[in-house]
Amino acid sequence: MNPTDSLANIRIVLLETSHPGNLGAVARAMKVMGLSDLRLVTPRCAIDGEARARASGAVDVLEAARFCASLDDALADTVLTAACTARRRDLPHPAYTPRQAAPELLKLAAVGPVAVVFGSETFGLSNEQLMKCRWLINIPTNPDYASLNLGAAVQVVAYELRSSLADAPMDLPGFEPATHQAVEALLAEMERTLVDIGFLDPAHPKRLMPRLRRFFARSGLEKEEVAIWRGILAAAKAGCRTGPDFV
Amino acid sequence: MNPTDSLANIRIVLLETSHPGNLGAVARAMKVMGLSDLRLVTPRCAIDGEARARASGAVDVLEAARFCASLDDALADTVLTAACTARRRDLPHPAYTPRQAAPELLKLAAVGPVAVVFGSETFGLSNEQLMKCRWLINIPTNPDYASLNLGAAVQVVAYELRSSLADAPMDLPGFEPATHQAVEALLAEMERTLVDIGFLDPAHPKRLMPRLRRFFARSGLEKEEVAIWRGILAAAKAGCRTGPDFV
Repeated sequence: MNPTDSLANIRIVLLETSHPGNLGAVARAMKVMGLSDLRLVTPRCAIDGEARARASGAVDVLEAARFCASLDDALADTVLTAACTARRRDLPHPAYTPRQAAPELLKLAAVGPVAVVFGSETFGLSNEQLMKCRWLINIPTNPDYASLNLGAAVQVVAYELRSSLADAPMDLPGFEPATHQAVEALLAEMERTLVDIGFLDPAHPKRLMPRLRRFFARSGLEKEEVAIWRGILAAAKAGCRTGPDFV
Repeated sequence: MNPTDSLANIRIVLLETSHPGNLGAVARAMKVMGLSDLRLVTPRCAIDGEARARASGAVDVLEAARFCASLDDALADTVLTAACTARRRDLPHPAYTPRQAAPELLKLAAVGPVAVVFGSETFGLSNEQLMKCRWLINIPTNPDYASLNLGAAVQVVAYELRSSLADAPMDLPGFEPATHQAVEALLAEMERTLVDIGFLDPAHPKRLMPRLRRFFARSGLEKEEVAIWRGILAAAKAGCRTGPDFV
């Protein structure tokens, strides 16, 4: 596999972007580092003249951007998702610097689409959106002024990915990773099952699901493991409905 | 010495910038990584409303920028100068990636101002301007589209500097480095001397001075060495004027 094919499998996902200039800047930041897969989830602005001007020679990337109705839609076929955020200590996700994350993102990008998700300029990413991502990426910044522009943040991550290409181990992982869609479906099924079996109280869920998400995020589910887990859940649910054998 | 003091000694020098938005983007890119020393050499635009809007919370860095009449003026008191350029094989300078250069830039910034120079959006840096810098910094880019925006280029370099802070060896170099002004004065004196002594034909200078510059750039002159070299040049010149003793 040509190493630059891994870059082609890196997807930049922008949520609710509000400034057209940033759309253009992101497209240019991507193309200059060899990225091309851009997804816009419910943008608050159009691809206008300002966006095209800022894209400069990367108008092709901008105009090839796909519009998505939801974050899940943008992530459905990915095998790894990382959210780029300011530092958050309240989240259960594993968090990495771009330098730490880049080689791993490239390794997985050799087998399937890998998404890096960026929130809106004003509101960033909601907890609900963050929980859909396996990893966090924190760009190190000045603690007194951490307000990185959206285009600049994409530039830093894209730069790290390109810079890591030479060092990236290009041997394929020895397993087939599960897609985002498969993992989300598993977690939803798990939550329902935990309610069904009386382990999770929907009125007082506490931190149970976030902790489970963290566990699965850290492990990085394989496709076959999803099937195994779904089997376990189905068995647990059936057992509950029919009642344990020993009653 | 506090490691972040080294960042305070990193100077960003912009030559003949033509877009006010880029001035603002550069100020923001700097502040978000902890840099603050901005010099504008004969800018082609003013610090206007667009520049302030793009600077966002870094308007202080933008408004504290010093205007310089020449590149030498902006570099006079620096102890190391690096020019950020697209890859050039025709130049005699040592060239590094930002990742390679950052730890060395920080090491020298612990003893004096270190400049990273960026050319104009349209014309980049002239050979004459590049020859005033000791090092080149090449940001790795897509060979099919290497057009990095000015603000994005500053962001990448500033990010590398901040990311390297933790790893940077903070022991001071065991010597006092010469300033840019002192090195330029020495090289000018050397050129005159070489003409005087008939080694350099001003009508056919060939690549002599670029090669000498490369030699001095690679070595990194110390303050005392400049004094030694000036002594040697003075002696050579005097010997030439009076004629060799043995004639």
